[in-house]
Amino acid sequence: MNAPAHIKTSDNAPNPAEILLEMAEADMQAVNAIIKKRMQSPVGMIPDLADHLVGAGGKRLRPLLTIACAQLCGGVTGGHHKLAAAVEFIHSATLLHDDVIDESALRRGRKVANRIWGNSASILVGDFLFARAFNLMVETGSMEALGILSTASSVIAEGEVHQLAALRDIHITEQTYLDIIGAKTAALFAAACEVSPVISDRSEADRSALRSYGQNLGLAFQLVDDALDYGGLSSALGKSVGDDFREGKVTLPVIRALDNADLDARAFWQRVIIDHDQTDTDLERAVSLLRQSGALESTLQQARTYAAKAVSALDRFEDSDWKKTLEALSHYVVSRVS
Amino acid sequence: MNAPAHIKTSDNAPNPAEILLEMAEADMQAVNAIIKKRMQSPVGMIPDLADHLVGAGGKRLRPLLTIACAQLCGGVTGGHHKLAAAVEFIHSATLLHDDVIDESALRRGRKVANRIWGNSASILVGDFLFARAFNLMVETGSMEALGILSTASSVIAEGEVHQLAALRDIHITEQTYLDIIGAKTAALFAAACEVSPVISDRSEADRSALRSYGQNLGLAFQLVDDALDYGGLSSALGKSVGDDFREGKVTLPVIRALDNADLDARAFWQRVIIDHDQTDTDLERAVSLLRQSGALESTLQQARTYAAKAVSALDRFEDSDWKKTLEALSHYVVSRVS
Repeated sequence: MNAPAHIKTSDNAPNPAEILLEMAEADMQAVNAIIKKRMQSPVGMIPDLADHLVGAGGKRLRPLLTIACAQLCGGVTGGHHKLAAAVEFIHSATLLHDDVIDESALRRGRKVANRIWGNSASILVGDFLFARAFNLMVETGSMEALGILSTASSVIAEGEVHQLAALRDIHITEQTYLDIIGAKTAALFAAACEVSPVISDRSEADRSALRSYGQNLGLAFQLVDDALDYGGLSSALGKSVGDDFREGKVTLPVIRALDNADLDARAFWQRVIIDHDQTDTDLERAVSLLRQSGALESTLQQARTYAAKAVSALDRFEDSDWKKTLEALSHYVVSRVS
Repeated sequence: MNAPAHIKTSDNAPNPAEILLEMAEADMQAVNAIIKKRMQSPVGMIPDLADHLVGAGGKRLRPLLTIACAQLCGGVTGGHHKLAAAVEFIHSATLLHDDVIDESALRRGRKVANRIWGNSASILVGDFLFARAFNLMVETGSMEALGILSTASSVIAEGEVHQLAALRDIHITEQTYLDIIGAKTAALFAAACEVSPVISDRSEADRSALRSYGQNLGLAFQLVDDALDYGGLSSALGKSVGDDFREGKVTLPVIRALDNADLDARAFWQRVIIDHDQTDTDLERAVSLLRQSGALESTLQQARTYAAKAVSALDRFEDSDWKKTLEALSHYVVSRVS
């Protein structure tokens, strides 16, 4: 099995995401079969475009969480497979729309779908996958799962609009930033985890615990992504760096750097973010400011706090390999940056 | 009450759509209140943008069908109000996305939302309204209604992608065209009608009859829209004419005209549609070819056939003012063109 994209191992030791994938292999095959089947359509552009994105791999982290949480709750059913596929469809739909919005060039190492089939096709196939997600949920017969995932979907869209409205605003508060990532990223992690105990008829407390695991894991995950967009703590800048900077997204590293910025640094952030006036060397200067000010390290510290909260949320579950790996995943999500 | 937008009366006599709106006034007020409430969000850009579209009026034809069909089935409940609002949200979401895709300038007499707030905002607020539609459906507790509307949603997206893939293809068959409009337009009309008997616990036969009413009404409606895009049968061309022509959408009038086209006319259609090479006088020539060949009249004849099918579908319901007005609406949808 190949290491999931985006997850870098410093040596060849399997990381918790890989271990989870191996542990859940049979279930994930069932989930992938549903995904493959349900993105079909007599309108050939739909499977072509969807397969370009979905077939490129990706971590399948969210459906994997649904499966792992089902295992924690006594076992995986066909309903869990469908909900896991629905979660991945919702995620795929948001990726297709995000790529149109962010004008990205690459996704999962491939040219983004909208640069091949056009923005219109990506918008509509996103809508199609989103609707198909709901078809799958209906088939599970669980109104509660539908409630959780439809609410998550509106919260995600709300978070994305919030992010859009906050572009180039260096005065946004830490709370606003946390609201945005809690909505645009963590809400789906939380829902992916929560639906499993729900259709396994587990207690409200189990449900709330797994929701908390997902929400905190999602927050940690996004904080790390936002730190990685400035190269994390490594000295060399990889090629997938600087997207947020170029788009004028004000993320926690920048907010924290602004807290301690002198006049000179403040003028710099004002020019590159508010005025959106950037030169070739500005990203390098931004990274250097973020490192010097300790903003990246403090962002990662915050991520560690959320990861620890995610781990605590699992306390009420009996010890098992699944629990151990979900705990390890939470720490791993943060470690991938350093 | 003002005449609903887009419905033109040659005199001041109320048309069946207006009569329906009056008959359903109290229920539509309840539906509008739900729409207004559920498009709210702490992220101000969402209600601003949504209100720009939704507040501009529009016919509210689809939710009106849900209410009228509920009346045919014994009465309107709070669940019907929620489903009617959900139907309008799905419709609004597709309009926001369509306007990005079609690069339209105006909608309901106003500048399209994406020209004010940008394409990104329109895509995301569309996603938000779509998700909110599912929140509302979940609240009704009807898994069957969810199944109907989620299936309709995926069919709509499928139809829109199909239309996109068929752009500038003058060789598409009549069946392909009918598949496209059946999906992109009629599916939501059908679903809007079908959900009412479903949550009123009416028989499968009632359900199927109202679905058929909606499907056929939707087909008639779209055929008429496509004829109106070439000015219908009136001699003067209004200002909202020629969108399909400019975008290279091959609609039934063009397909029918091509059936009888001489070499000269065929070369014309090839140049303006396939090569997309259009001059200022080409729309006028297109209209003249469509009229001379009888293609517009034959398109309307086809619309009349669907309208009559819609009326027949109501046969099994007892006579009532609601039934009479739904029948009249079906004929009216076609008459608005001539």
